[in-house]
Formats: sequence, C-alpha cells, structure tokens
Amino acid sequence: MRAPQVVPLAGMPRQVSVFEVGPRDGLQNEPTLVPVATKAQFVRRLVSAGLAAIETTSFVHPGRVPQLADADELLRELGPLPGLRTVVLVPNLRGLDRALAAGATEVAVFISATESFSQNNLGCSRAQALRVTQQVCARALDAGLAVRGYVSMCFGDPWEGSVPVGQVVEAVQALLAQGCTQISLGDTVGVATTGQVVELLRELDAVGVPASRLAVHFHDTYGQALANSLTAVQHGVWTVDASAGGLGGCPFAASATGNLATEDLVWALHGMGVDTGIDLPALVQTSGWLAAQLGRPSPSRVVRALTSG
Amino acid sequence: MRAPQVVPLAGMPRQVSVFEVGPRDGLQNEPTLVPVATKAQFVRRLVSAGLAAIETTSFVHPGRVPQLADADELLRELGPLPGLRTVVLVPNLRGLDRALAAGATEVAVFISATESFSQNNLGCSRAQALRVTQQVCARALDAGLAVRGYVSMCFGDPWEGSVPVGQVVEAVQALLAQGCTQISLGDTVGVATTGQVVELLRELDAVGVPASRLAVHFHDTYGQALANSLTAVQHGVWTVDASAGGLGGCPFAASATGNLATEDLVWALHGMGVDTGIDLPALVQTSGWLAAQLGRPSPSRVVRALTSG
Repeated sequence: MRAPQVVPLAGMPRQVSVFEVGPRDGLQNEPTLVPVATKAQFVRRLVSAGLAAIETTSFVHPGRVPQLADADELLRELGPLPGLRTVVLVPNLRGLDRALAAGATEVAVFISATESFSQNNLGCSRAQALRVTQQVCARALDAGLAVRGYVSMCFGDPWEGSVPVGQVVEAVQALLAQGCTQISLGDTVGVATTGQVVELLRELDAVGVPASRLAVHFHDTYGQALANSLTAVQHGVWTVDASAGGLGGCPFAASATGNLATEDLVWALHGMGVDTGIDLPALVQTSGWLAAQLGRPSPSRVVRALTSG
Repeated sequence: MRAPQVVPLAGMPRQVSVFEVGPRDGLQNEPTLVPVATKAQFVRRLVSAGLAAIETTSFVHPGRVPQLADADELLRELGPLPGLRTVVLVPNLRGLDRALAAGATEVAVFISATESFSQNNLGCSRAQALRVTQQVCARALDAGLAVRGYVSMCFGDPWEGSVPVGQVVEAVQALLAQGCTQISLGDTVGVATTGQVVELLRELDAVGVPASRLAVHFHDTYGQALANSLTAVQHGVWTVDASAGGLGGCPFAASATGNLATEDLVWALHGMGVDTGIDLPALVQTSGWLAAQLGRPSPSRVVRALTSG
C-alpha cells in the first residue's frame, strides 16, 4: 500500500505567483481604520512569510478611502524593500505624483469593463477613464516605473448584469497598448463561475493576449473565488491576486465581498505540489495577528481551521 | 459585441445530481436542537425547491447524537415522499430496524478509510465495521431497500495525516461488494485538494470502479470543498453531496467544519449551464429561514449575498 501522491491538476504549472492585495484591497474594505504602524508591520510580516509581490496601498483621494489616507506615511515608514515587487494603486496623475514622491517603484491603474460601474464608481465614462490611465502610464513609464492594470467587472456588473466578453477584451487590449506589463482580470462583485473564466481566457488568447500577461482577481461573494482561480491557473494564468486572511470580507457582514483568502489558495496549490514560495504557517500567524487587531475572526477558512484551539 | 456565453468546463455533464445532506450531516453538527416540526418543514421546503435526493436523518444512538434523537418521529411526521430519493443513515442492525419500522426507503451505512478514525469515532476496527455494514446491507437488501455507502477520511485523517489511496480503494470495493448502489467519498476533515481527488478517481477507475457509482462529500474546513467537487464532476462523478446553507459550519466557530453549501455548488453549476433541477432562489429562502431558526447567519456565501439588504 503506497502513500498518496501529490498530483497536480491537468495544466498546472510548477510555480504560481501570488499577488498579495490584502494591505490595499483588503484593508480598504474593512470598516476598521488600522494605524500606519500596524500596516507597516503587516507588510513586513507578509514579506517574512515569503510574499514576493504585494500591493501595499492606494493613492486615491483620502476623502474617498479614509482607510488608506496614510499612503504617503506608510511608504515612508516601510522604506525601500529591495528584491520585492511592491505596487501602489493610483487613480490619476495627482495620485501618481504622490506615489512618485513617496518612492513607489510600481503603480497600478484601473478601469471598468462596464460603463455603469465606470460612471458610478470612477465618476467618468470608460473612454475618459482610459484617457486618465494613458496619462498615468506615460508619466510612470517615463519615470522608469512598471505599471499594472486592473480591469474591474470582467464577469458581472451590479447594474448591467452579465458583461459581454468583447468589452473585457477591448479593455485589456487598451491597457496593454498603454504599456501595462500585467493585466489583472477582476471579478469585483464575485459572481463569476468557472466556465466564464475559460471563455474569457479563450477570447483573449484568440486576439493574441497571452495568459502569461494576465492575473486574476476574484472576490469570494458567491464562494467561487478559489475554483475560479484554480481554473485560470490551469489555463495558463500564473499570477493570482489574493488577500491575506481573506481581508475585506467580514464574516459578520451579511454580504461578504472580500478577496480570495491567500491561505486558502496556498493550501490548494501546495496540496497539489505547486510551489508559491510562501511559508503557510507564518502567513496564517500573520493573518491571525491582524484579525486580532481588527477585533474579529478571519474570514479565511484555513486561518480559522489552523488557529482554533 | 456578443453576449457572454455560458461555457461548461471540460468534462462537465449536462446535469448533476445534488445529494442534500443538510437535515442529517448539517443539523447533527449544529449546536442548536431543532424541533421536529421545524425539521419536517425544512425537508418539505427542500423538496419544494427541487432537491430530489435528501438524507433526512440518522438512526444513531440518541445519546450519541442528541440533535437527531427524533429520527423516528421525523419520518412519521414526513410520511411518504413519493418520487423522491430519501435516505437515512444507520450505524448498525438496531438502527436499521428502527429505520425500517419508521418506513425508510433507502439507508446509508458508513465506514472509515483509516483505522484511527474507525477506532476513535466508530469504536471498532475497520474489519469489525465492515462486518456490521455486511449485516446491515444484507438485511436492508432483503427488505427491498437500496443502500448508500459512505467512506469517511478518504483524503486526510486527524490522527494519521495523509491517507494511502489503496486503503480508500479497498473500502470502496468492500462496500460495493456488500451491495451498496452508490459510494460517497468523504473528506470528513475538509483537508483535500484537487489533485488528490483526481488521483483517487484514477485509482478507482483502474480497479474497475466506475465514477458513475460514486458521489463526493466535501467539508469546507480549508475552503476547498467547491473546487474539489467541481474537479470530481469534471472527472465523471455526477452526484455531489452538499448541505443547504452550508449547515454544520458555524461562522462564529473558530474551526468551521460544515459541508459544502448547496447554494454555492448550485451557483457554480448553473453558472456554466449545468442543470440541477434546483430552484436557487427558493433554496436560498429556505436556508435563510433555517438560519433565522438557528439564530445566526448562514455560512453559505451565496445565501449571505442574496439575503442581505
């Protein structure tokens, strides 16, 4: 009788890059304001746990996202983090200038695949949003920074329902043309299912967008985030966005809208022998520690399972 | 620009049978004792929502599982449910006799793939457990009942760690030889990852056990239940056990060990055009209603998303 084998699924690579968005996308959706020293400690602990790509904060208007109003201060507090990929989100040229002044080394821009979300969330049309990202990309590239692009609402939109694949393809192509090195496909409302993921990746491949330029970014609103992410990885997307502890999805909130929990993703990948470079126990400890700072249990199933008595 | 297509994953069938275990596996793990009238209403509402296969209760010793001590009463209260597959769990001949007296039409037996869990949970060795199921199967088949078999701990065991695949294969073959019509592969502690699922199905296929005789039964302790279930379906297992509202996994408990939520599974399947016969809004309403009876939010992400203000 032999021991169980570690078997990867068909199409699984040997390695997957986890792009950690907890400090930005996670904390910006938490009701609690976290002190800057705690945020810095959070990022440092993530680095110690082996997270090599981290979105640390966002230079949006402090009035819009008070949770991240300390972006400048956080970057000063963190100082240079050599050997790591650290990214900050910037909504416009003003945000980029703040990010540059604070020493950012990579920025991220974002647009919506749908007109309704663009109007309602960004306050401008998709065409206007693309003019903004064009300016940001040009100035950032001039300054020697890499730029990551997010496309929100790739699979469903609260106003429009399902999203035509062609709109997503156009948005991805536009951001690539502006010089983004990697495009993260966002399921902002967390409604996507696995078949949609495959369909979108096929359509992108058909117009010459290689999966190696893509990342996926799933929220777990309908419990689909891990299944969708693994499906994307099987189809060639080797960077997955996730949030330590499933930050941003409060287990007490009626409608949890957090990101895929990094721990749940890592459990799945390590379980089939796919390397992430992440020290899972250290990451679980970090998320357990942060949950205590936030005063509530982590929404990550792995964190809850491994930190219980 | 065309509308998004509903695309099934490779290997997906047109239809999947959901085997609803909420009234049994769900409620037996809830701290709250639910009145028999509420249980009967729960089952009837599940039937109205299109659930066609339901495990309604268990005839274990009332002292061991007080949550289900009213099994006889519940079956009398429910009366015949023609056209449905209703199953009751029986641990031994005494339980079978109670089930027969109460009018059961199908029973389920269970064994463990590991010696430690057998000794610690069932109080006997695996060999002894198989002698019990042999007796139960023989008498049930004589009485004209179908028998479902559960194999617990197919992927991991709290005492032994990983479980050799050969032990699981032997357990499945033993139950099939005793006359079970369907074997449900249980990840009782919820630690499995997708590669293990494929490996076990391959090994079972290699010894002539067709996937059509199998079901899968995942607990969501580590957040892997949906990904594992979809992987099993892609590999030919067309019956998936799930629990309405993710019953049995309390969101306030540090270590949630509930089943895969039926709603989260149905969202995934319907999203790629796979039919289940289930009316999802009616099911969500039912789980929302039961959560109110239990005095806490449902652990199902879909239920929480669709019942929030």
